[in-house]
Amino acid sequence: MILIKNLSYLIDKDLKVYENCDVLIKKEEDGIKKIVGKNLIEKENLNKSDLKIIDGKNKAGMPGLVNTHTHIPMTLLRGIADDMRLEEWLREKIWPNEAKLTKEDVYYGSLLGCLEMLRFGVTIFNDMYFFAEKVAEATKEIGLRGVISFPIIDVGTPECENRDKLIRMAENFIKKYKEDKLIKPAIAPHAPYTCSEETYKECKEIADNYGTLLHTHLSETRYEVVEMENKIGLRPIEYLEKIGVLDNNVIAAHCVWVTKEEVRKLAKHKVKVSHCPISNMKLASGGVMPLIEMLNDGVEITIGTDGVASNNNLDMLEEIKVCSILHKAHRWDATVGDIDTVLKMAFNSDALGIENNDIVLIDLTAPHLRPIHNIKSNIVYSANGNDVDTVIANGEVLMENKRFKCIDEKFLDKLYEKVDKIKEKFSC
Amino acid sequence: MILIKNLSYLIDKDLKVYENCDVLIKKEEDGIKKIVGKNLIEKENLNKSDLKIIDGKNKAGMPGLVNTHTHIPMTLLRGIADDMRLEEWLREKIWPNEAKLTKEDVYYGSLLGCLEMLRFGVTIFNDMYFFAEKVAEATKEIGLRGVISFPIIDVGTPECENRDKLIRMAENFIKKYKEDKLIKPAIAPHAPYTCSEETYKECKEIADNYGTLLHTHLSETRYEVVEMENKIGLRPIEYLEKIGVLDNNVIAAHCVWVTKEEVRKLAKHKVKVSHCPISNMKLASGGVMPLIEMLNDGVEITIGTDGVASNNNLDMLEEIKVCSILHKAHRWDATVGDIDTVLKMAFNSDALGIENNDIVLIDLTAPHLRPIHNIKSNIVYSANGNDVDTVIANGEVLMENKRFKCIDEKFLDKLYEKVDKIKEKFSC
Repeated sequence: MILIKNLSYLIDKDLKVYENCDVLIKKEEDGIKKIVGKNLIEKENLNKSDLKIIDGKNKAGMPGLVNTHTHIPMTLLRGIADDMRLEEWLREKIWPNEAKLTKEDVYYGSLLGCLEMLRFGVTIFNDMYFFAEKVAEATKEIGLRGVISFPIIDVGTPECENRDKLIRMAENFIKKYKEDKLIKPAIAPHAPYTCSEETYKECKEIADNYGTLLHTHLSETRYEVVEMENKIGLRPIEYLEKIGVLDNNVIAAHCVWVTKEEVRKLAKHKVKVSHCPISNMKLASGGVMPLIEMLNDGVEITIGTDGVASNNNLDMLEEIKVCSILHKAHRWDATVGDIDTVLKMAFNSDALGIENNDIVLIDLTAPHLRPIHNIKSNIVYSANGNDVDTVIANGEVLMENKRFKCIDEKFLDKLYEKVDKIKEKFSC
Repeated sequence: MILIKNLSYLIDKDLKVYENCDVLIKKEEDGIKKIVGKNLIEKENLNKSDLKIIDGKNKAGMPGLVNTHTHIPMTLLRGIADDMRLEEWLREKIWPNEAKLTKEDVYYGSLLGCLEMLRFGVTIFNDMYFFAEKVAEATKEIGLRGVISFPIIDVGTPECENRDKLIRMAENFIKKYKEDKLIKPAIAPHAPYTCSEETYKECKEIADNYGTLLHTHLSETRYEVVEMENKIGLRPIEYLEKIGVLDNNVIAAHCVWVTKEEVRKLAKHKVKVSHCPISNMKLASGGVMPLIEMLNDGVEITIGTDGVASNNNLDMLEEIKVCSILHKAHRWDATVGDIDTVLKMAFNSDALGIENNDIVLIDLTAPHLRPIHNIKSNIVYSANGNDVDTVIANGEVLMENKRFKCIDEKFLDKLYEKVDKIKEKFSC
């Protein structure tokens, strides 16, 4: 059992704030149980020798952060291509370098990404990358929980060039992991402009059969929307509705270039949207995801960092500040994208079908987090990922006092050596 | 003498990158001297006992960051009012609470702000706040360098209600500090909508007489621009030109709502602009400062965080990432606000007439800063203020291994106690 003693602030999933309390975390057969209260040692009659005690003074606790759209192994491409137009970025830098990645490379890139997320208090995420099995392995090794989506592209991925074979591999991947405690497998037809109607339908069938999520890119750029309108007279969301893909097991990343009518369709079919503000801004997608319209229509919105090649980090605290100020600037209205709205999106693991029982502690001893008029404000607008101090996920202490507990001391050095070796084969 | 040994990367003011070098920092009569090279102990025939040696392995060095528009003591108001319309924010929250601040409060708020800036690698800044003398005292105590501007508002400031008296106080402040090594005093007529023509002219005369900067807010909101156009038929920059204020000793914050013609006027008169992207976004100023037009016309642009009540921190590394992605998103062009452009703005101390001889080291051992394809990219797009490891300003080590060297261990606790005491009198 883990006891966080005298925690200065606790923010729960419903964004209620408690001050000066203890939190007891118990790992039981049917999941993690939490008790919040004062003087829990006495009240719960706890035996100190059964407890891992963490000092909560000058710390703020909150649920684990949830990154609902990323491509973790892209950590390997951090900073390889910036300030470039999307087309050139993809064709000249990202795709040629991704094609060089082996299974082993993806494993090390995933370890790096998992450690980065853990460092920043992200305990649950939704990934899409080839060699998904290696992403899953790394996730388990670090102890995070992830929806690991097996990506499908009609022309194939660096993992396999044959679409039919890829779909069979995806199904096998789902079978292998469907009972896993940390991994939730899923299928990921890449996007309407890279996957045929047949592909989407087959992926949807697999998602339905195995009760998994279908993770896809949707309406990220104006170009893809106009291209589809020209080709078939339908916009991407209209198209996916028509072929029967839209459903409450779909999580769609981006959704920048959508009409009000399309927003209503997303709401009607209970599609989950992963909003990626920094990536959209950095790649100059142009539009801004219509947050207010989506919220008004009841679309379930979550937040994603996207891959590191377009962000260039996995810092969800940075992401929610940018999310808030982007929408304020976009709408000329400082009241939108308010603290509670962005925190709710950042803690939302329900969209992934995962219960968020994790606790992240923020260190409040740095000057930029003082004074504390409103602890939620300091977390959203003043803090950054490095302020995360301690992470307890699945009832395990994965990081404490900013030090990783899930790996041994030399692990990082060895990992960086591997990553530097992989880097050598890239062309900048 | 300070020797940084085996520094993994060094970025100089011209953004040239050196790898694996030593940096020797000497404090001489006529300023700080720096020598960059390999094996400097041997080459320069240095005696180790004369040296403070800092291990530069896995660190990146760069010039001190320069925050050219802020109101440091507003740290006291961090998180007191978010997600509010500018008018309400000012009238209901900021002004009533600022009116409660004493000289002593401003001193403690400034200490907090200076430590926050130091923690984030900001070594030079340009401030505007009442009780400027207290801001100056705190700046000297921490060891940073600042242009400390004495603010003038026609209806008075919490420091003094009489405009004439304020102007005399400003002149005395400038006299007192004009030979100071760390403080450059300046005068700050608040904005064209709060200061009369007479006030601007008197301030300009003082700035000219003493060779100091004139620091002012300019065209931050559409409201003030329209109000002035309605009242006198001139836009703010046209107005300041007409009354003879625009000059190369003027540093103007914001400049969001400006026409192309006004941009040309800023360039013609060599006015320095402090761009505050996060504050403009958070307060929903609506427009976006025309970065490209200003750069094309040769306006000297620098970057400011603005005060903590509208940011809510003083993290210049966060500011430059947001600056870059804001302009990419605004222009639908991923090539604008590129790495070199924002770094140049962030290192620019020339606009303040201060030489930037400071060195800031970034710790490269965290997962989010690996691998390193492009060290400048990792600093602009992946790092945050907490990654700053060591700060050497004015030839002194003010922070080392993320620990303040300019204050003793218990200083922070006492400061936080003071700040919490001040907090009690605010109404949220």
